[in-house]
Amino acid sequence: MKTEPARGFASAEFSARAKLMQKEMARAGWDAVLFTTAADIFYFTGFLTDFFASPTRPWFVVLPARGMPVAVVPEMGKTAMAKRYVGEIRCWNSPRPEDEGVSLLAETLCGFSPQNGAVGMTLGAGTIVRMPQNDIAKLRGLLRPRTIADCSDAVLRARMRKSSAEIQKMRHIAKTTSAAFAGLPEDARGEMRERDITRRFARSLLLRGADSLAYLAAASGADGCESIIMPPGEKRLSEGDMLMIDAGAVFDGYYCDFCRNYRAGDSAKKTINARKAHGVLHYALREGFAAARPGAAAEDLWRAMESAITRKGYGASGAGVRFGHGVGLQLTEPPSLMRGDETVLKPGTVLALEPSLVMESGRAMVREENIAITKTGVEWLSDPAPEEMVSLFLR
Amino acid sequence: MKTEPARGFASAEFSARAKLMQKEMARAGWDAVLFTTAADIFYFTGFLTDFFASPTRPWFVVLPARGMPVAVVPEMGKTAMAKRYVGEIRCWNSPRPEDEGVSLLAETLCGFSPQNGAVGMTLGAGTIVRMPQNDIAKLRGLLRPRTIADCSDAVLRARMRKSSAEIQKMRHIAKTTSAAFAGLPEDARGEMRERDITRRFARSLLLRGADSLAYLAAASGADGCESIIMPPGEKRLSEGDMLMIDAGAVFDGYYCDFCRNYRAGDSAKKTINARKAHGVLHYALREGFAAARPGAAAEDLWRAMESAITRKGYGASGAGVRFGHGVGLQLTEPPSLMRGDETVLKPGTVLALEPSLVMESGRAMVREENIAITKTGVEWLSDPAPEEMVSLFLR
Repeated sequence: MKTEPARGFASAEFSARAKLMQKEMARAGWDAVLFTTAADIFYFTGFLTDFFASPTRPWFVVLPARGMPVAVVPEMGKTAMAKRYVGEIRCWNSPRPEDEGVSLLAETLCGFSPQNGAVGMTLGAGTIVRMPQNDIAKLRGLLRPRTIADCSDAVLRARMRKSSAEIQKMRHIAKTTSAAFAGLPEDARGEMRERDITRRFARSLLLRGADSLAYLAAASGADGCESIIMPPGEKRLSEGDMLMIDAGAVFDGYYCDFCRNYRAGDSAKKTINARKAHGVLHYALREGFAAARPGAAAEDLWRAMESAITRKGYGASGAGVRFGHGVGLQLTEPPSLMRGDETVLKPGTVLALEPSLVMESGRAMVREENIAITKTGVEWLSDPAPEEMVSLFLR
Repeated sequence: MKTEPARGFASAEFSARAKLMQKEMARAGWDAVLFTTAADIFYFTGFLTDFFASPTRPWFVVLPARGMPVAVVPEMGKTAMAKRYVGEIRCWNSPRPEDEGVSLLAETLCGFSPQNGAVGMTLGAGTIVRMPQNDIAKLRGLLRPRTIADCSDAVLRARMRKSSAEIQKMRHIAKTTSAAFAGLPEDARGEMRERDITRRFARSLLLRGADSLAYLAAASGADGCESIIMPPGEKRLSEGDMLMIDAGAVFDGYYCDFCRNYRAGDSAKKTINARKAHGVLHYALREGFAAARPGAAAEDLWRAMESAITRKGYGASGAGVRFGHGVGLQLTEPPSLMRGDETVLKPGTVLALEPSLVMESGRAMVREENIAITKTGVEWLSDPAPEEMVSLFLR
């Protein structure tokens, strides 16, 4: 196992995150902002737990106009939260379905905002408020006459600019996953079924230092994939099939998200179409990478990859509405590498370049790599796959 | 690897689920019901994907008053959805932030419900509607003057009564996880740090047939845990420490959720308090199990465990507001084993019995097993841990 980056972040980093958000809050006139999701709460406090998998209990963090975040959480989270970047912790005994923290949360928010004030919540595209709708309605009632404002853009924009400590974790998980992909022909030798192969892959990822594999998709067949978002199945690979594996592995809360395509067996002839398409997407990735730099717009990268694919005589696939996206505390984050997304890339933005095309068969091929925008250009976070599809030697 | 249960379900099972829900809908006067979460969509259609980890795209399934569910999904999900239990699939090209499926969804819902009709959504405790708040507001506007009704109780009640095919999957993942726990002293031999030990555990789980480990918590120390919901850390175990590992492993969409406590090293003397508490919770589990049968109320099981603990001179821990919960397509589901939850247990309900107590040290100990209510009584799904804490021999 390579040396892991340190877990967590220095206090100064959380303080900087709060202050940046508070600057946005002052500009927009929000007196307090509410966070409810695992990603946002981790970002502003460092509180990391799988417990968000349990839908019974909500978790709240309030960022006031000044000072540290305030946690409003179930009693059972108090000790753990006390070690994180919070100035105060308020608790209720949960579960308490008749008032699942709502009155305590409202009291907290009201304490930070005057009656004619405004409270920010994540209401926009790509976000949810992680609490029951009935409780959101109750909360809105208790906050009246305060305004509820949509702060999702500001939050997602803040998260989009990763610090060097964040990039270090993302580089680590991308390199770890690259190594697991590179080792797969050896690690999965003798396995024939999609699921058995991906199981070997998952084990190897854990061994190499990933905390978890939160996202896994796989597909196989001759000349392309029917779908690129489904879990592996029972299908046995045949000589000449291709196998796509897409992995969202996690280290200390941070994702990588990229895929690899393998060809089954060593018959070069049976995979001629797949190998050609793989080469075209290799070229598209190179073009996307070349277009990536601070100041470029998200759609510029899309255009570079799209024109590379059409220049080679292929059409973008159905999934090709977009050719990539941000990555970070979630598998997919803004921006979208697609027509119309004019987000200007800044140093610290991590992206999945994900060009795809429709093969002669009518099925899709997709390739994906992770990159980070730097002060002067761009860096590969994943080790780019070779131009030639790697072969999985079946038994 | 033991023989795995078959993946997915027969069409007849999905048809029965739809019909049962439609009976509830007729009773309540709902013309259509909307599902948005991974768990609900899998339950009613069999569509299973990790892609819900990506917050960019919503997925919708509408159950009309009669007939099969209708999917309203991003174009990229069409091929995969077509293999599932849906009568019709309507698609939009996503991402399309200006109208992320909302108008198509509204059109679909309106097609199934008259203007004076009602549409069911999951609004209540333990549920979310997985789409941005702004889109929910837009949807409500487009559905007007139709009523929006809370269908969460009906949905969660339906999911609470598992079929034998569902129980079979849950038994499989509980047995698989039991075996991984039993093998841990061997599998983790020589490892000293929490995270290295749980990494061995996760690898062993995958090897033994789990699809993933979606929930993992661990804690160690002398005489109890400070918190029982946090991820493993860098801490090195010392002779006499105890180590708690709580695992939510998944097979074909279904969770198990139970924990094990180990003592580090073979010093019986240093762990005397922990071993005593472990024995008390063993007794509490037995009492909870004895109280579990069709017709019993959820709170009866809580009471049986609570009185077992107090009879032995301990107090319930802070987490002891509840002593367990339902398990299924989510890590925690209704009912709650706590005072005031009068849910009557029926055959097919799967529960985590999870009694906890405060040790002399002021820290907590928790034990947990999974059980299923049967027609005539109750069945252990996990292999119950022995009364004596198992030792992890350190190097």
